[in-house]
Amino acid sequence: MYREQIRMLDCTIRDGGLINNHQFDLRFVREVYRAVSEAGVDYIELGYKNSKKLFSVEEFGAWKFCDDDDIWKAIEGIESRTKIATMVDVGRVDIDDVKPKDQSPVDMMRVATYVKEIDKAIFLVNHFADKGYETTMNIMAISKDMGPELDRALQQVESECRANAVYIVDSFGALYQESVEELIKRAKGILKTREVGFHGHNNQQLAFSNTIEAIIHGANYLDSTVYGIGRAAGNCPLELLIGFLNNPKFDIRPILDLISDEFIPLRDEIEWGYIIPYAIAGMMNEHPREAMALRQGDGKENYRQFYESLKSTVE
Amino acid sequence: MYREQIRMLDCTIRDGGLINNHQFDLRFVREVYRAVSEAGVDYIELGYKNSKKLFSVEEFGAWKFCDDDDIWKAIEGIESRTKIATMVDVGRVDIDDVKPKDQSPVDMMRVATYVKEIDKAIFLVNHFADKGYETTMNIMAISKDMGPELDRALQQVESECRANAVYIVDSFGALYQESVEELIKRAKGILKTREVGFHGHNNQQLAFSNTIEAIIHGANYLDSTVYGIGRAAGNCPLELLIGFLNNPKFDIRPILDLISDEFIPLRDEIEWGYIIPYAIAGMMNEHPREAMALRQGDGKENYRQFYESLKSTVE
Repeated sequence: MYREQIRMLDCTIRDGGLINNHQFDLRFVREVYRAVSEAGVDYIELGYKNSKKLFSVEEFGAWKFCDDDDIWKAIEGIESRTKIATMVDVGRVDIDDVKPKDQSPVDMMRVATYVKEIDKAIFLVNHFADKGYETTMNIMAISKDMGPELDRALQQVESECRANAVYIVDSFGALYQESVEELIKRAKGILKTREVGFHGHNNQQLAFSNTIEAIIHGANYLDSTVYGIGRAAGNCPLELLIGFLNNPKFDIRPILDLISDEFIPLRDEIEWGYIIPYAIAGMMNEHPREAMALRQGDGKENYRQFYESLKSTVE
Repeated sequence: MYREQIRMLDCTIRDGGLINNHQFDLRFVREVYRAVSEAGVDYIELGYKNSKKLFSVEEFGAWKFCDDDDIWKAIEGIESRTKIATMVDVGRVDIDDVKPKDQSPVDMMRVATYVKEIDKAIFLVNHFADKGYETTMNIMAISKDMGPELDRALQQVESECRANAVYIVDSFGALYQESVEELIKRAKGILKTREVGFHGHNNQQLAFSNTIEAIIHGANYLDSTVYGIGRAAGNCPLELLIGFLNNPKFDIRPILDLISDEFIPLRDEIEWGYIIPYAIAGMMNEHPREAMALRQGDGKENYRQFYESLKSTVE
């Protein structure tokens, strides 16, 4: 599969940070940045720009806030053509923390939102676009918002919002490929002047195949992470996506080294991937928070009990 | 997804046996049979009917041979409507070992073959059909044999062979969903009077999504294994497939218990699943034997070296 317009975005540090309170140390972040750059990936997302009025710098690591100074330290001296992205959540960013693009190491601002908060998200995207950034709008939990409200939100984005790309985000890892096809076609039909992106979660081992499905139907912005790291079941593995794209501009080998040297040891310290309670949450189209809580406790392998409990809450 | 014609076949003990020389003890096999039966799965495959003239009973466990006596011990006293299947490989079975159906606990004989040995496979299928068994033809390594030779083989099966179902087997975990769609459509187009089946391998985390793709395009015989156990990267996880099918005849809960009680501890003893060298072999459409050898040695995490080495053999 080769298509010139395809853009790969590595969100290893950002989505991976959701399982360790964004506590990756500088050395690790630099190793990821170096390997992702050598692999030829178009963008790397390093974390969130969250307001320090809302979150404690004692509790969370640097990549919860992504101060420009920390980003400069992460990229200093490493040759790279990979652009830097950071994410903001609607309601959690202090926009004055974001300097104009020409004073910042960041190239792209991504705004994560639910359908119901699309007005606030459009304001943020346009604000960051005014400051000179590339922008994306990332519509989360889409498996819960697939009705006409989604069409209206996409129409509003097309007419009012300056986002370069709009992502379909399968936050709950609940989508099968038929739904991905339907969603990407709908988005492409409405967003005539924007690119469409896809961000999968791997609860049911479908993040990679759903990303392929999105590509087949025209999505050009593709999120993935090294060895699939990310909250709960994690994301589409970057290494598999490079294998599928089979584009000489990407090189899988630096990513293989990074997995050997950093991610195999890391996986012994923090948990992500195909784990039954996350699969159950995905099947039931539910947020993984109950499953994540289960995995912190003594009953972490009590799958039947978890299944019955989650089922009783959704019925 | 509900379709009355769908038949689920659990091949946990058969494909899982490929990673431990078929050494599952009787207690374990009975627990799997009990759970698969309670889950309402249509068939369970317990192993191979291999000739003892070719393989040593000292080296291999009982499920390499599947003597009827061993099968009787595995199922005795367990209430079940799940039918018993065993597999034979072309060239490795002594057909006199297989009694007529009315003297055996086995219901279905599955014949595994490469395209080039289709004549021998047809002979075996018809022989077992004559003895009263349900039969399937499982065409392996299909990602290497997708040219006109496959059409000729399928035409020959349609006209000469009594198999109830013909499986497309992605032995190398190399297929993406577009190829699965194409293969299932071709098979359905030629095999007018047979069911089509699909057996995936999970090298690239695509066994489940490829099985869904096969279902969408009309495959009704579906292989899977508990927690995805199987040679190298393993197979389509049974629990995910039950979640997708969402058919009240299947119950996921006995499988969840089985994973909690048996497969989580087992995974600490024997290895299968998403492991980078298996992913690389899948991307390159190669047999996993080199990757399996790598995982037995000291350099088991030397991914780049393995990648370069395998690449040099296929170029």
